[in-house]
Amino acid sequence: MKYSSKLIADAVAEFTKLPGIGEKSALRLVLHLLKQDVDKVRLFGDTITRMRSEVKFCRTCHNVSDHEQCEICSNVHRDHSTVCMVETIRDVIAIENTNIYKGVYHVLGGIISPIDGVGPEKLNIESLIDRVRSGTVKEVIMGLSPTIEGDTTIFYISKKLKDLNVQLTTIARGISFGGELEYTDEMTLARSIATRLPYENYLVKNSN
Amino acid sequence: MKYSSKLIADAVAEFTKLPGIGEKSALRLVLHLLKQDVDKVRLFGDTITRMRSEVKFCRTCHNVSDHEQCEICSNVHRDHSTVCMVETIRDVIAIENTNIYKGVYHVLGGIISPIDGVGPEKLNIESLIDRVRSGTVKEVIMGLSPTIEGDTTIFYISKKLKDLNVQLTTIARGISFGGELEYTDEMTLARSIATRLPYENYLVKNSN
Repeated sequence: MKYSSKLIADAVAEFTKLPGIGEKSALRLVLHLLKQDVDKVRLFGDTITRMRSEVKFCRTCHNVSDHEQCEICSNVHRDHSTVCMVETIRDVIAIENTNIYKGVYHVLGGIISPIDGVGPEKLNIESLIDRVRSGTVKEVIMGLSPTIEGDTTIFYISKKLKDLNVQLTTIARGISFGGELEYTDEMTLARSIATRLPYENYLVKNSN
Repeated sequence: MKYSSKLIADAVAEFTKLPGIGEKSALRLVLHLLKQDVDKVRLFGDTITRMRSEVKFCRTCHNVSDHEQCEICSNVHRDHSTVCMVETIRDVIAIENTNIYKGVYHVLGGIISPIDGVGPEKLNIESLIDRVRSGTVKEVIMGLSPTIEGDTTIFYISKKLKDLNVQLTTIARGISFGGELEYTDEMTLARSIATRLPYENYLVKNSN
């Protein structure tokens, strides 16, 4: 597209670098900002820049944080003996939003994926082993997506942790609430029969 | 949603102020930027801020510009005797992208809309009359959307310009190329019959 202003063209180009934003959407955002006060737009730009330059990663769990240690790790009311290992900080946000989990996290920063050139050495696995070795962790919940890469990563880490005195669990795989049994894929259905629960447990879990 | 970092939460909040971006999309954008280099994100923020604080509006046509006069108005190869009056700079971009129009523009900055409290005094109408009065303009194309507000604005401006020696035209309303006659609304269909063209003109227009 042709713009009569290079400033506008540059701003549009910056927005199109973001995922899922094409040139027309970018132009819409730029023209929206153009109608706002200069101060508001400056705040927008500064907030984004500050976020990237000042954000830290928690030295314990590698979650994003404003301090050396994140709010979750420094919260004494959380259960520090239960660590939920997840792929990304997005998963932390998703689990936090359930308001159910009271333990702490460990963000791997990815999963083992040879096809993408991600080996175990690129992930925060050593620091997880160190945390377990320190002795305060009683249970590690393997909160990874049930994909081939996820299961590979779980297998790799479980072997690393198996000689340490820690309980390993995985989040339950099964049919989603509201999901229809008839349309569930065979693997999920087979697994959810194989890992069936006593009905008492089901009731307890639901009433939580 | 809960974020373990206020910096992240603030950045998400800034993105959600943009039109069409909800909290989940905003988080996706923020986490994308978090993975980029600090310098790239600073460039993003600075480009947006600079765009808003440094962009000018052309003193002749009120289009966005990097200078006192926009590229179109300062281009001697354009036909300065033909002025296409449009609602917003977005319309200028749309018409420029057709690569057909060689005249210049006049951006009103809106249309008359009593319901939104926009009267003629809030639009760049006086400067249009001044341009016409200066004598260089032979034709004013009323390039507004065929809505009630658009037609009201055209009517208002045409009365203001009618005693000046200038030809007034409107962009053609009719059935879109590729549009189906059967599904065209009655008003458009009625107008496109009333304003039918000799076939020779149709051929000329298409071969342009």
